[in-house]
Amino acid sequence: TYPSSQNHEKFYEKRGTDGLFAQKTLEITEEVFSSYKNQGGYYMLGRTRDQIRTTEQVKAAMTTCQALKLDALVIIGGVTSNTDAAQLAETFAESKCSTKVVGVPVTLNGDLKNQFVETTVGFDTICKVNSQLISNVCTDALSAEKYYYFIRLMGRKASHVALECALQSHPNMVLLGEEVAASKLTISDITKQICDAVQARAEKDKYHGVILIPEGLVESIPELYALLQEIHGLHDKGVFIENISSHLSPWASALFDFLPPFIRKQLLLHPESDDSAQLSQIETEKLLAQLVETEINKRLEEGTYKGKKFNAICHFFGYQARGALPSNFDCDYAYVLGHVCYHILAAGLNGYMATVTNLKSPVDQWKCGAAPITSMMTVRGWSRGPTASQIGKPAVHIASVDLKGKAYELLRQNSSSLLMEDIYKNPGPLQFQGPGADLKPISLCVEDRDYMGRIKQLQEYLEKVKNIVKPGCSQDVLKAALSSMAHVTELLTIMSSPSYSGQATI
Amino acid sequence: TYPSSQNHEKFYEKRGTDGLFAQKTLEITEEVFSSYKNQGGYYMLGRTRDQIRTTEQVKAAMTTCQALKLDALVIIGGVTSNTDAAQLAETFAESKCSTKVVGVPVTLNGDLKNQFVETTVGFDTICKVNSQLISNVCTDALSAEKYYYFIRLMGRKASHVALECALQSHPNMVLLGEEVAASKLTISDITKQICDAVQARAEKDKYHGVILIPEGLVESIPELYALLQEIHGLHDKGVFIENISSHLSPWASALFDFLPPFIRKQLLLHPESDDSAQLSQIETEKLLAQLVETEINKRLEEGTYKGKKFNAICHFFGYQARGALPSNFDCDYAYVLGHVCYHILAAGLNGYMATVTNLKSPVDQWKCGAAPITSMMTVRGWSRGPTASQIGKPAVHIASVDLKGKAYELLRQNSSSLLMEDIYKNPGPLQFQGPGADLKPISLCVEDRDYMGRIKQLQEYLEKVKNIVKPGCSQDVLKAALSSMAHVTELLTIMSSPSYSGQATI
Repeated sequence: TYPSSQNHEKFYEKRGTDGLFAQKTLEITEEVFSSYKNQGGYYMLGRTRDQIRTTEQVKAAMTTCQALKLDALVIIGGVTSNTDAAQLAETFAESKCSTKVVGVPVTLNGDLKNQFVETTVGFDTICKVNSQLISNVCTDALSAEKYYYFIRLMGRKASHVALECALQSHPNMVLLGEEVAASKLTISDITKQICDAVQARAEKDKYHGVILIPEGLVESIPELYALLQEIHGLHDKGVFIENISSHLSPWASALFDFLPPFIRKQLLLHPESDDSAQLSQIETEKLLAQLVETEINKRLEEGTYKGKKFNAICHFFGYQARGALPSNFDCDYAYVLGHVCYHILAAGLNGYMATVTNLKSPVDQWKCGAAPITSMMTVRGWSRGPTASQIGKPAVHIASVDLKGKAYELLRQNSSSLLMEDIYKNPGPLQFQGPGADLKPISLCVEDRDYMGRIKQLQEYLEKVKNIVKPGCSQDVLKAALSSMAHVTELLTIMSSPSYSGQATI
Repeated sequence: TYPSSQNHEKFYEKRGTDGLFAQKTLEITEEVFSSYKNQGGYYMLGRTRDQIRTTEQVKAAMTTCQALKLDALVIIGGVTSNTDAAQLAETFAESKCSTKVVGVPVTLNGDLKNQFVETTVGFDTICKVNSQLISNVCTDALSAEKYYYFIRLMGRKASHVALECALQSHPNMVLLGEEVAASKLTISDITKQICDAVQARAEKDKYHGVILIPEGLVESIPELYALLQEIHGLHDKGVFIENISSHLSPWASALFDFLPPFIRKQLLLHPESDDSAQLSQIETEKLLAQLVETEINKRLEEGTYKGKKFNAICHFFGYQARGALPSNFDCDYAYVLGHVCYHILAAGLNGYMATVTNLKSPVDQWKCGAAPITSMMTVRGWSRGPTASQIGKPAVHIASVDLKGKAYELLRQNSSSLLMEDIYKNPGPLQFQGPGADLKPISLCVEDRDYMGRIKQLQEYLEKVKNIVKPGCSQDVLKAALSSMAHVTELLTIMSSPSYSGQATI
């Protein structure tokens, strides 16, 4: 049962950032904490807007920190929350506010990823819960042999969740947003691609299948993205929802009219605070299922498709995985990050993120660290709408799925057998004990991301060279060392120069 | 990975009852079976129509049984499959076909339930998988505090799945079809009931909640049921879908026009083979969410509701739980039933169902049995459409949730605290090892259903009395025994008479 002590009830009146601005407090004693330990969700302190960005919000946060004489503010979240954390740290330092700000990488989307952050807390759990459900659907598909399941997965713009779930459960197809964007596939290209797959399977007498669709896909399809940008531009200009369709450019208007009514309504929704569309509300899976059905029926009439009727069932796996009890890995990771936060603050650091690397190894080989959030920030120029232009602000940006990475390669290696042979895999429900309980995300394990570990390794080499080559060493050794190091230095200087164009010259 | 041996691939071409009619066979060796053991779904032998009912179907099944000289046909399923099994057994016996037919109670809906069958294989798994997801949504509701989640659960006409999930996860509200039918609640009564709950919670500053909706609810709402009956009657008469709305009676037509377009389309779908609507396709959760939103907005305008904006998120938990890896309990139960089948057939019985009772006790206290399927069948007169009438056929009928039963009582006892106090409970994901791995359905455990056990107990009493009262016993003992038994006999005779009207006279 969920906790509900008297004190707590009072605190419940206002939580999240709203509670912070209103100076609401809750002392987290061992007793209070005990009923939240290793649970999912954000219901101990709540979440509201997840944003401390505007001048008023920043001011309100600072007022609270000063009034309550807080030593530190720990901000838990993904790219936007950590961008806020970095800017808050800066403002606090400038204003001589003594509260230190520290960030913790927590988001189910897995899209906060860089040389310091290998994965985020929550990603493993979400992927395990979703993979279980996808596998169940695969089993059902194989039992009934008459449905194509179109499953949309929560995960925001990037397709990390879809990729990991595909690696865990082996569905017939997965449409990664990054792939679609890179190949500039239009909605009709994608429809055709799915129809060709349906047709190829029908020729093998197979009339079932499971297709994964990341919720961010809709923003990766060029013409839909352009349409969304126009709509958001009109929102910015204050055009009412009911008038937007008549203000669209002729081209956008034609696309808009082509789309089924339910999706038009969803595309017209106000954008979110990070300027992206309301991805969880846009039923891309239904749109694709409908377009595929229409196309298959057309092919049936033309005689190019000779199989049985195409039947689709659509699902959205969103909120039902979000508050799940966390996996052993996520619990361990979060515990260690918590400890790291303590050490960051004990050292008096401000604007740092707690990090743990070498995560794919056993816990006793994990490497704790702290990195300035600013070191993860970049400036990207971007514009929106036909005329709008904006000077880029430094921010922690979403990491897309790396189409040259090992995880993606693993998926692609198997894609034709996944498509045709139904090599579905069932990881089963998330376990806390027994076999599989300590498994980690496949994409984490196949990638070689231990950046900090490798830097340390390099430093060990340098130390070794220093120890070998010191007064008293032979001329030969010195000569060999000098010549080698001259080479290395030259190479690295070239590679680090701004004009160096990547892997091309290696 | 799923199996795909050469032989198997061939068999895959035709499976389920279609495979039976086509005389397709698969020899289930230890090796073939090993990769299916303790897995979910029906993908070893497949499923197609799930029906052996028409004269052609029965004939085809018999031809196969005779051609292949089958000793037995084991039919796995719920009420309709077992009704088919009983009729098939009868036909086989009449036709001197030597194949014996045996039924096994397997259905996720849990609606095959009587004095011999305490629960069905699959029910425990489905409820555990769904309860996990409902709990995740509850946690999310409590974290964000801004959404009402309307969750529709698969489970056909009866609300067993919804009841069990509510007992496991403690959502704010559950709308049982049986309750709605018993109280004859209209769609606007239900809307009002939910709105009142939203309003009461808003007064306590709560703007979130989780509401469970069994998929069968739509057929329990009197006016929607009547509308569906009219539509199905028009289907029977061969009226095309696009013309149905213009053939409706004025009253039904008015209701139809009142409903949102998406639900109209779903109500017009062809009924299923058991004459019920396509429950999995009718988005009752969206209908209710929309009606509640409209009503709350109306109250907001009128000033009777003073809270924040009402936000709903809808979910359907259907196919994603269906092929799940089965719980320990379901595996054990299915194994024992399989063994019982063997013994039924070894004894040469025909038309029996394998049964196991006393399931809430440890496995070594389970009681195996066999009951003639006919003993579970009743004749119910029913009519459909304005003029149609039909003579009832004996059938195994769906068991509704018992509104006088202990499981329902347990739910009702807590209903006001469930509604107002957010005493959400998280059973977590289905475990195969460790704490909770061997839990059984709550509704099974609270009900005292060991009918056969109690009959045996009674027989033991009778035996004891017989042993005490025999030639040589004292006159006093004989007198006391006679008088007591006369009493008992009289009482039971009265209670067993057809005119006896229930508990009223006790």
